[in-house]
Amino acid sequence: MSVSSQSQPQLPPTGAITPKTALKATTEQWFEYPIKVQPHHTDYSGAVWHGTYLTWMESARVDYWQSMGIDFAELVKLGCDLPVVELSLRYHQAIRLGQEIIVKTRMNEIAGVRLNFDYRIDSPNAKELYVSGKVTLVAIDLEKGKIMRQLPPAVQDILVKLIQS
Amino acid sequence: MSVSSQSQPQLPPTGAITPKTALKATTEQWFEYPIKVQPHHTDYSGAVWHGTYLTWMESARVDYWQSMGIDFAELVKLGCDLPVVELSLRYHQAIRLGQEIIVKTRMNEIAGVRLNFDYRIDSPNAKELYVSGKVTLVAIDLEKGKIMRQLPPAVQDILVKLIQS
Amino acid sequence: MSVSSQSQPQLPPTGAITPKTALKATTEQWFEYPIKVQPHHTDYSGAVWHGTYLTWMESARVDYWQSMGIDFAELVKLGCDLPVVELSLRYHQAIRLGQEIIVKTRMNEIAGVRLNFDYRIDSPNAKELYVSGKVTLVAIDLEKGKIMRQLPPAVQDILVKLIQS
Amino acid sequence: MSVSSQSQPQLPPTGAITPKTALKATTEQWFEYPIKVQPHHTDYSGAVWHGTYLTWMESARVDYWQSMGIDFAELVKLGCDLPVVELSLRYHQAIRLGQEIIVKTRMNEIAGVRLNFDYRIDSPNAKELYVSGKVTLVAIDLEKGKIMRQLPPAVQDILVKLIQS
Repeated sequence: MSVSSQSQPQLPPTGAITPKTALKATTEQWFEYPIKVQPHHTDYSGAVWHGTYLTWMESARVDYWQSMGIDFAELVKLGCDLPVVELSLRYHQAIRLGQEIIVKTRMNEIAGVRLNFDYRIDSPNAKELYVSGKVTLVAIDLEKGKIMRQLPPAVQDILVKLIQS
Repeated sequence: MSVSSQSQPQLPPTGAITPKTALKATTEQWFEYPIKVQPHHTDYSGAVWHGTYLTWMESARVDYWQSMGIDFAELVKLGCDLPVVELSLRYHQAIRLGQEIIVKTRMNEIAGVRLNFDYRIDSPNAKELYVSGKVTLVAIDLEKGKIMRQLPPAVQDILVKLIQS
Repeated sequence: MSVSSQSQPQLPPTGAITPKTALKATTEQWFEYPIKVQPHHTDYSGAVWHGTYLTWMESARVDYWQSMGIDFAELVKLGCDLPVVELSLRYHQAIRLGQEIIVKTRMNEIAGVRLNFDYRIDSPNAKELYVSGKVTLVAIDLEKGKIMRQLPPAVQDILVKLIQS
Repeated sequence: MSVSSQSQPQLPPTGAITPKTALKATTEQWFEYPIKVQPHHTDYSGAVWHGTYLTWMESARVDYWQSMGIDFAELVKLGCDLPVVELSLRYHQAIRLGQEIIVKTRMNEIAGVRLNFDYRIDSPNAKELYVSGKVTLVAIDLEKGKIMRQLPPAVQDILVKLIQS
């Protein structure tokens, strides 16, 4: 979680920050982030520890931003953070040490300053589904420590183009 | 994720492993696990990284087992694992370096070999809610690499007593 | 690593920041931090992953500060950080899921703004040694992004008393 | 740490497992593993947390094995583990969110079943050194829970060729 305000503002209820009009993705295209399971990803069971997936999902998301031309570290320097405010995951099948998998993500909705991402983790041939999930981010003004009223214009333009492509 | 079979059995759809009768908790009592935020829990924002909560939630759950008389490592040695198969989290408010919080959990349902836990992370005086969530575990037979047909009897007895107390 | 300057100053060579007189500990007393090994501490081998120890060592160190009356988060707010600049570890014996161990630390030297800590991780009866190590911290002025010329006076007083007790 | 024996054999003192003849590397060639710093790599300071480096160093080492034709997960399946028994690190300069760096490693010595690796973490142009370190692994027979008398022949052949190339 990455809300940077010293005063720790309570996030408003979902309804309050979701505008009536939300842009839904018109594409089925996934950004792909390949992983080969390393020792530090696993637990005593020999399979990936259930929390490790969040590191992969974050890396995939940041690289996805980068592929759109948004450098996440630059965004933070400019005073805009994008913390996770909701996530849900279903673990369908274990993934084991040394296995190769593809973390797939796509932005599927822009609802004001809330951004929704879908995730799936598949085998390279896409025949096996290991994990599916959803993550919601919200844009935070780091200086004010508050949720932004609107996305930074440069980001908004890129995201709207992406979601409508 | 901790399914230990070499053959990585696909978990059946939720319906298939949920019996018609589920035991719902009749108590509102929470197990409490206090934390003071350490440097390694945080990220660049100065607040707790969103994936760190899963380590706390797991530790709270294992200590909760222990408080009921179930040693998790012993259970694994006896051939029963309890991997996470579903989780969802809402992040209401950031938690910062050095802050003291209470991770609270309780088992709220036994549905065959599926166990559902509620979570909330509160300030010590319970006036601030930082995170709320749900986690579902399922019992796995480590030797067969399959979901168990029923919980080990000793565990079943303890859990049923707990949920009905 | 926690040097906060935007300009990322190169740390000077060890000699340059070690004054000729260093205060050596006159006590053999250890601060003790007990741990029971959780699933997320382990890897595929069933034993603790070698990097996990650094989280325990950090938590032990921060609680040790606290026991002396130094709140680490307050220190950071006041503009002084204490990043790790050197560490070395020897792993003598594996520690397994569910095992109880004691992380022990003590400050053994103050050399200007460099602080040296010894570590050992033992069984509760102290008959088994699992890990031994050393960590060196250095005091950083967060505003200037530079190594401090001297420790903050309040900290200096506490530490000198401690090391001479 | 990855020693897999249930009986947790005490590792013998260094001398006992170091044969008189050790093969020293005759090459200065480094294996390179590039990283761009992700949010989960950082701590409250905005720089990389000092323990995060161990995950990068492990990933670099496993990919280095792979580049030589040794699949680490296969090695473990065949009953040979290679836990870390010693490590030392010097942190020269902080690395910040979004920064690109190169983790470099090379095996510099085979001393019986002990393998020594050098590490350095550099800027892409190699003008800045962020971290330098050493890691020692030892080969363990997973079935017997003991240090091997000699490396598996296939591994030995590959490593000797590598170190003498």
